[in-house]
Amino acid sequence: MALLTRIRGPRDLDRLSPEQLDQLADEIRTFLVDAVSKTGGHLGPNLGVVELTIALHRVFDSPKDKVLWDTGHQSYVHKLLTGRQDFSKLKMKGGLSGYPSQAESEHDVIENSHASTVLGWADGLAKANEVLKKDDHVVAVIGDGALTGGMAWEALNNIAAAKDRPLVIVVNDNERSYAPTIGGLANHLATLRTTDGYERFLARGKDILERTPVVGKPLYETLHGAKKGLKDFIAPQGMFEDLGLKYVGPIDGHDIEALESALTRAKRFGGPVIVHCLTEKGRGYQPALQDEADRFHAVGKIHPDTGLPIASSGADWTGVFAEEMVALGKERADIVAITAAMLQPVGLDKFAKAFPDRVFDVGIAEQHAAVSAAGLATGGLHPVFAVYATFLNRAFDQVLMDVALHKCGVTFVLDRAGVTGTDGASHNGMWDMSILQVVPGLRLAAPRDADQVRAQLREAVEVTDAPTVVRFSKGAVGPAVPALRRVGGMDVLREPGTDTPDVLLVSVGALAPMCLEIADLLDRQGISTTVVDPRWVKPVDEALAPLAERHRVVVTVEDNSRVGGVGSAVAQALRDAGVDVPLRDFGIPPRFLDHASRGEVLAEIGLTAPDIARQVTGLVSRLDNLPRALGSARAGGTPPENSARAVEPARD
Amino acid sequence: MALLTRIRGPRDLDRLSPEQLDQLADEIRTFLVDAVSKTGGHLGPNLGVVELTIALHRVFDSPKDKVLWDTGHQSYVHKLLTGRQDFSKLKMKGGLSGYPSQAESEHDVIENSHASTVLGWADGLAKANEVLKKDDHVVAVIGDGALTGGMAWEALNNIAAAKDRPLVIVVNDNERSYAPTIGGLANHLATLRTTDGYERFLARGKDILERTPVVGKPLYETLHGAKKGLKDFIAPQGMFEDLGLKYVGPIDGHDIEALESALTRAKRFGGPVIVHCLTEKGRGYQPALQDEADRFHAVGKIHPDTGLPIASSGADWTGVFAEEMVALGKERADIVAITAAMLQPVGLDKFAKAFPDRVFDVGIAEQHAAVSAAGLATGGLHPVFAVYATFLNRAFDQVLMDVALHKCGVTFVLDRAGVTGTDGASHNGMWDMSILQVVPGLRLAAPRDADQVRAQLREAVEVTDAPTVVRFSKGAVGPAVPALRRVGGMDVLREPGTDTPDVLLVSVGALAPMCLEIADLLDRQGISTTVVDPRWVKPVDEALAPLAERHRVVVTVEDNSRVGGVGSAVAQALRDAGVDVPLRDFGIPPRFLDHASRGEVLAEIGLTAPDIARQVTGLVSRLDNLPRALGSARAGGTPPENSARAVEPARD
Repeated sequence: MALLTRIRGPRDLDRLSPEQLDQLADEIRTFLVDAVSKTGGHLGPNLGVVELTIALHRVFDSPKDKVLWDTGHQSYVHKLLTGRQDFSKLKMKGGLSGYPSQAESEHDVIENSHASTVLGWADGLAKANEVLKKDDHVVAVIGDGALTGGMAWEALNNIAAAKDRPLVIVVNDNERSYAPTIGGLANHLATLRTTDGYERFLARGKDILERTPVVGKPLYETLHGAKKGLKDFIAPQGMFEDLGLKYVGPIDGHDIEALESALTRAKRFGGPVIVHCLTEKGRGYQPALQDEADRFHAVGKIHPDTGLPIASSGADWTGVFAEEMVALGKERADIVAITAAMLQPVGLDKFAKAFPDRVFDVGIAEQHAAVSAAGLATGGLHPVFAVYATFLNRAFDQVLMDVALHKCGVTFVLDRAGVTGTDGASHNGMWDMSILQVVPGLRLAAPRDADQVRAQLREAVEVTDAPTVVRFSKGAVGPAVPALRRVGGMDVLREPGTDTPDVLLVSVGALAPMCLEIADLLDRQGISTTVVDPRWVKPVDEALAPLAERHRVVVTVEDNSRVGGVGSAVAQALRDAGVDVPLRDFGIPPRFLDHASRGEVLAEIGLTAPDIARQVTGLVSRLDNLPRALGSARAGGTPPENSARAVEPARD
Repeated sequence: MALLTRIRGPRDLDRLSPEQLDQLADEIRTFLVDAVSKTGGHLGPNLGVVELTIALHRVFDSPKDKVLWDTGHQSYVHKLLTGRQDFSKLKMKGGLSGYPSQAESEHDVIENSHASTVLGWADGLAKANEVLKKDDHVVAVIGDGALTGGMAWEALNNIAAAKDRPLVIVVNDNERSYAPTIGGLANHLATLRTTDGYERFLARGKDILERTPVVGKPLYETLHGAKKGLKDFIAPQGMFEDLGLKYVGPIDGHDIEALESALTRAKRFGGPVIVHCLTEKGRGYQPALQDEADRFHAVGKIHPDTGLPIASSGADWTGVFAEEMVALGKERADIVAITAAMLQPVGLDKFAKAFPDRVFDVGIAEQHAAVSAAGLATGGLHPVFAVYATFLNRAFDQVLMDVALHKCGVTFVLDRAGVTGTDGASHNGMWDMSILQVVPGLRLAAPRDADQVRAQLREAVEVTDAPTVVRFSKGAVGPAVPALRRVGGMDVLREPGTDTPDVLLVSVGALAPMCLEIADLLDRQGISTTVVDPRWVKPVDEALAPLAERHRVVVTVEDNSRVGGVGSAVAQALRDAGVDVPLRDFGIPPRFLDHASRGEVLAEIGLTAPDIARQVTGLVSRLDNLPRALGSARAGGTPPENSARAVEPARD
């Protein structure tokens, strides 16, 4: 690491010779494999952009110029070149974020890990430069996979409209997002990759044309003199130029000199330019290159030599869903599956293998996943769209206005729901149980264990006239949590052991073991507690209000933003039933969460059994000590700020 | 109307001669001008698609084949040809919807009025046909404006990927959405319009090439023999063919014979085809054609001969915002405006006239509007994105993950918030105050009158580190509602006249006059009421809980879904403060609302002063009669179903 350790910032790259740059690239690859195999992280994408990142930082002058990364998980090399070389706590509490972070560096801009945003950011920054008459440069790096997202199109349409507004778009084309990129765009990029268009035509045809006289001068010259120029007339332009974007490429994305040459031309062009770079995901690391599924897109801790995982994770939520989908697929020919470029991560690879004609990968296009699901349902099928919970935000309007308004039987399976932790703010699946509350007719299940995943998925696909949602956590699924009995559609997990119980604890999804622990802790304080799992959290079960009325306090616990979530829905249902039992709702406070392990995050926000038990104990003892008239009750006190029960600060 | 009245369904078109078809088109235009001038409605778009709709229903066999309309407001001709010719109550309660409606006709599919969805629906329906081995056809009509939306791109990418899956896409190209279409796509469509590509090249060049020998045979033949064919080699293909979509066009969209010929070829093609039709918005109606702003996109009641409006609407919310934006623009050079293809409807035309370099029309692309706003703010400006409240749903993820996560000072102005009524379910702006609750740091204002629109817009653009939202109603703005005093940041609109008041009424936005009326009604029942307007409804004002504690009941009234809205936020804030005063929240029930006037809708859902006063009176009298221990209070009773206080039905 003789060279790498001497790079403190991008300008340290200026004095390196071509040979040194190649050596630096080698050092960075060695560093990445070594560091990421110890911590886990996005290995494949970063191995692919080593030379590209070096070239970008040699040609552009960050942070004056803005170097923008789409999706952000390919910014490790960028971090290394901008003064961040301690990867020992990558994605861990107090360590480097796995994405760009404004708090880490003035060289970082976009922290959002959702794909396809970079062109919109770039368009806004370029417009600001124009209005403020700055001549700083804006360069946006986007993968070919992310170009399948609608936001990319909206941005391209806008960027192309301003011929004189400089903006450099680098298409990092590795022919895949997580998995190989699909669709018309992928085919077109393939065409651009395999033809050199103009240049190849010239090489093949110029001689002939020059020797061919037409009306007294060579045909070449005749065509060349046509208004739009020979290129427009002869060679396929490609869609980017059709839209009005200058196209440069394809460029070997591992040839630093070629990259610098292309980027320098693009920088000087004075308008919007696409630089099409061909890169290899996992470059230089054999285990990644041999992994056809996703080229080590994101790995846990691995053996650096073999690439094999160090710890086996055991049964996880995704795996349970994956198996049940195959079973359902065998039973029902009308069940089809949809993924937004994440067949394997959401567990639909097994279904795809069993029923290749009944799975649709739509690209990084959650909107299309949802709206085409409405079409599939209207056409007589039952689609199951499996997606990370945080990414469903992209399709809110389509869930509401296409699926729900038209009463389509579509099932949404939300993986990685709740606090996921290490991937930071934008990967937590903490919004779905709030925003989906407003969707008329939608039914939402939060299974607490593997048995319930299977059972509730089956219940969901039985619904033919409304959207259904099944949401579960990331990672290992816990042991089965048995039900004692059923009240309405709800499972009673624990009885209070008295006819005059104190607390009704409403447990949501995977937090059932935590809720049972809370009940045990309350029990030791002499507070009798019923624990109930509603199973379907929307709509609120009609049996809940009568049950609540027999308790002194209702407590809800959910792995979701506490704003507008299950707690609020339960509270409203109780109000509507005229049941004014005091309620306290515990969940994720309404702020963005820094990266850390799930356990660390939960501890930090007070979403733990001891924290919740303590607060409930305090509430119950105040009720004991302070009997009051109904109209002026006060029990609870001010909660700690930013905790699972915090009110939102006025500004944050 | 000799011919039109005899058309009961699409198959009645089969026996008409070319001359009769032209006569039918004339009759339809006369009918539309006559009918829509009496009721108001989308006139311009429907005048543009008369011949296209006739041709579609002659070539395709609806409802077996699916004829799909994007955005839906251009389906009037379709309605006339599918048995719906009573337009006397268009968009009124009990009359025809202004959009397709499955309840009206088996010929209708998509009811959603949000743009750019049709290609996704079509893709889903075509996939279902494939899985179910049906040979029905799917044809989707989309405007050139709607093609600027990201959903259209996501769908095109998917549609193009399946070479053998039949699907006909009709691009209804009138060079505008509401206003002229902008961006790279618009420029490309213009190129396709003005060149005939292949055909024109042939007409100009074939003779020369055939007379030009190359290596013993004509150059034409030589080129023609190249692998990709002459066309690919010589003529600009256009981006649709680059993507893998067969392109047919451009077709004169007012020539029924040409349309039928093109559509028939497309229908037989056996794969995805684009048929590019050129139409004229407002065709055949001089007042519309002379209106450069929007070609009578949507009109109120007008004089059919002159096109002049019959009633002047007076000062409206949009107009107040429009004027204040110009004033702000003069004061602050950093304020810029964004619109998603609706410059005039959201009132930004005045700002654009005053500051043409500081307004950005991004096309029908709400996602891009929001994400580029994040870029503009990061670049040093303060963007104001004005949009209909219902359309902001499209940008939820971008508001959350791009604007809020990055603490960008961006102001969202939501026009047409609350019940809008006549445009039906998908145009009501009833979701924003719910889904935006979860966005950390976001501040949301609901001004109650014109003065407050001005004041709160000014407060909003002062915020530099978080998104701000100002939401207001559709139509005429009422008289000023003065504040008596301020408590915290809240305006007290009415004092209870006693030291032991009964009800704290929290009034949201334009419902202030209704809330004052409720207070008067309660007063007559001897129930003393304080009315407070929080002005900023998010975050909940810290002064609210102490104020609530001095009352026996808290009532919230909002023009928004009652699920997760302001009422729920207030309830949570009170719980967090330990204030367990009973609360009742009134708002829009969680179901989709049929079209009717705003007043009719509000009456139907019980969001009226007498309805609410009656329910609050009942609650207070039960509290009077039934003093109970805090832990088991029950007061309220079962609310009427589907009302402003209804619980959501288990299935709807």
